[in-house]
Amino acid sequence: MPTINDIAAKLDISKSTVSKALNNADDISASLRKKVLDTAVEIGYKKNRIRKDSPQKLCILVENIDVENPAGFGHGLVIGFEQMAIPAGWEVSTVPITSREQKEMSYDTFMLSNQFEGAFILGFSLLDPWMEDLKTARTPTVLYDNYIQENPLVSYVGVNNDESFDMSVSYLKGLGHTRIGYLGGDMNSHITRARYTAYSRAMRHHGLTEDAALTGHTYHISKCIQKYLPRLLRHHATAILCDNDQLANAVMIHCQELGYKVPEDVSIIGFDDAAFCAYTTPPLTTIRQDQNALGRCGYYALSSLLNQTYISSLLLRAELVERGSAGVVKREDP
Amino acid sequence: MPTINDIAAKLDISKSTVSKALNNADDISASLRKKVLDTAVEIGYKKNRIRKDSPQKLCILVENIDVENPAGFGHGLVIGFEQMAIPAGWEVSTVPITSREQKEMSYDTFMLSNQFEGAFILGFSLLDPWMEDLKTARTPTVLYDNYIQENPLVSYVGVNNDESFDMSVSYLKGLGHTRIGYLGGDMNSHITRARYTAYSRAMRHHGLTEDAALTGHTYHISKCIQKYLPRLLRHHATAILCDNDQLANAVMIHCQELGYKVPEDVSIIGFDDAAFCAYTTPPLTTIRQDQNALGRCGYYALSSLLNQTYISSLLLRAELVERGSAGVVKREDP
Repeated sequence: MPTINDIAAKLDISKSTVSKALNNADDISASLRKKVLDTAVEIGYKKNRIRKDSPQKLCILVENIDVENPAGFGHGLVIGFEQMAIPAGWEVSTVPITSREQKEMSYDTFMLSNQFEGAFILGFSLLDPWMEDLKTARTPTVLYDNYIQENPLVSYVGVNNDESFDMSVSYLKGLGHTRIGYLGGDMNSHITRARYTAYSRAMRHHGLTEDAALTGHTYHISKCIQKYLPRLLRHHATAILCDNDQLANAVMIHCQELGYKVPEDVSIIGFDDAAFCAYTTPPLTTIRQDQNALGRCGYYALSSLLNQTYISSLLLRAELVERGSAGVVKREDP
Repeated sequence: MPTINDIAAKLDISKSTVSKALNNADDISASLRKKVLDTAVEIGYKKNRIRKDSPQKLCILVENIDVENPAGFGHGLVIGFEQMAIPAGWEVSTVPITSREQKEMSYDTFMLSNQFEGAFILGFSLLDPWMEDLKTARTPTVLYDNYIQENPLVSYVGVNNDESFDMSVSYLKGLGHTRIGYLGGDMNSHITRARYTAYSRAMRHHGLTEDAALTGHTYHISKCIQKYLPRLLRHHATAILCDNDQLANAVMIHCQELGYKVPEDVSIIGFDDAAFCAYTTPPLTTIRQDQNALGRCGYYALSSLLNQTYISSLLLRAELVERGSAGVVKREDP
């Protein structure tokens, strides 16, 4: 096990300087502190807790997800994680993190400097700088809806997208639909790719033809609708699957503005089951993810990694919530 | 919650007869007992434990796997499961089960009649009669290396096959191999299909061409070798991935009998890391599954199902164990 002495020797500085740097002392420059932390990470140094009875710390790193608002999507994830972690004796910090902050410090250095033993990460895209760090990171980490193949210390927790889209396509086919389109976010996120792949597989599985004219992907909802929705409708889509509820609701409103009735002319199904889904016009049929259960599974996976049990993926079942936005096909195929 | 009265009313028999049937009394005919149990399952009756302090029961159902022998593959699965379940207060029974027995009684009826609250199932193929029952079963069940899409009360636990074959193909490519073949069991098992699909994906992912002349599947090892091995060698396979260690070792011996040196002329990689792998000539390079961890995860998944957390799949990382059966390519491509 590498010690403070190894760091001091490697940097040719005194043990007390290393110790000050590791303990956030004021009289150490930021650049020297970073050098010490980076070296500590490089040689695999692990800090001993100063007092044996001080709680060990985990963090939930958050980007692009609102975890504060009880109606927001990330809130349940945090609560579920905490409901497991806190009774087990962990201190849990929820830490918002930006791309800029990620560029300033390596992932392992950040974790060591804050004495976090592990992390549950919500909302990262494939472009987040730390996604590259995570390929070789030595800190046990669980990603929600995100996946790193290279590193056994990183687990993926989410819902089974293949099953989810299979359910939606099967349900729509049962209502008479064959021209089933798909709209989603851009391909810079693991989950957007996984959901689109799941849609394609489900169409093949149910013997339906995926038509390129009936699919579209763009990050911004308004752009996605402007660019693709008229084309989908022109090509006689009678149903549209969306990869999230915000998009699904916006698609529904725009269809209605263009004179299409939902679900009489076009059926729409969302994903997530956000709190607003029951209140849209008509109420949105969607695929429900149990956020609290996902948060609990996030803790289980992290606790397994901390105990040398290397979970690659833990996927929950999702559930189709039937409301009013999908119905029997009324329009004739051309 | 349905009661004994509902069963009695439905069958037009007395409450005491129902009670005798549910409690395995001697003075009830086998056919009447079966009728009572089937009706109990049909209406969703759940037996109350007679004494509150009697332990609740789980079972490990076993087919085609030797769980008794500490060197056998299933032993670690059972131990890992028990190490979690018994301290949590469960009584665990390991029950060998045949296809014939499965045909005699429905799965839920068997579970109810034995008062098992849930099961961990090892070694079923897709042809086992209860695989059909499991699509609609109401007993929480975890399958090792097997998957039921239709039923949220059934979870799948195993290793991530896609990652495993990606590792093997990447490793062999690094040693100069491009003509990488595949031999495996027949397609009547979920895991055989999943491993073959994983091999195909890995070949594509690494820019290598899958050649139909270099792959083969048959249940019996001797038949698989007789039918496919000469063809693979004739078509210049320099490496062969096998979907289990028994097959890999047999392939290795037959290659040597045919005058091919392992690994100089042909590299061979197995799957599982059975106890004998370290003792073959040469020692077998293979993909290691941590059986004990898989058993522990089996319990976790079952306990989650029993607590209404519907895990679809829980996949562990596997590990490439480098021994002596794979090496740098020596033979020239034609």
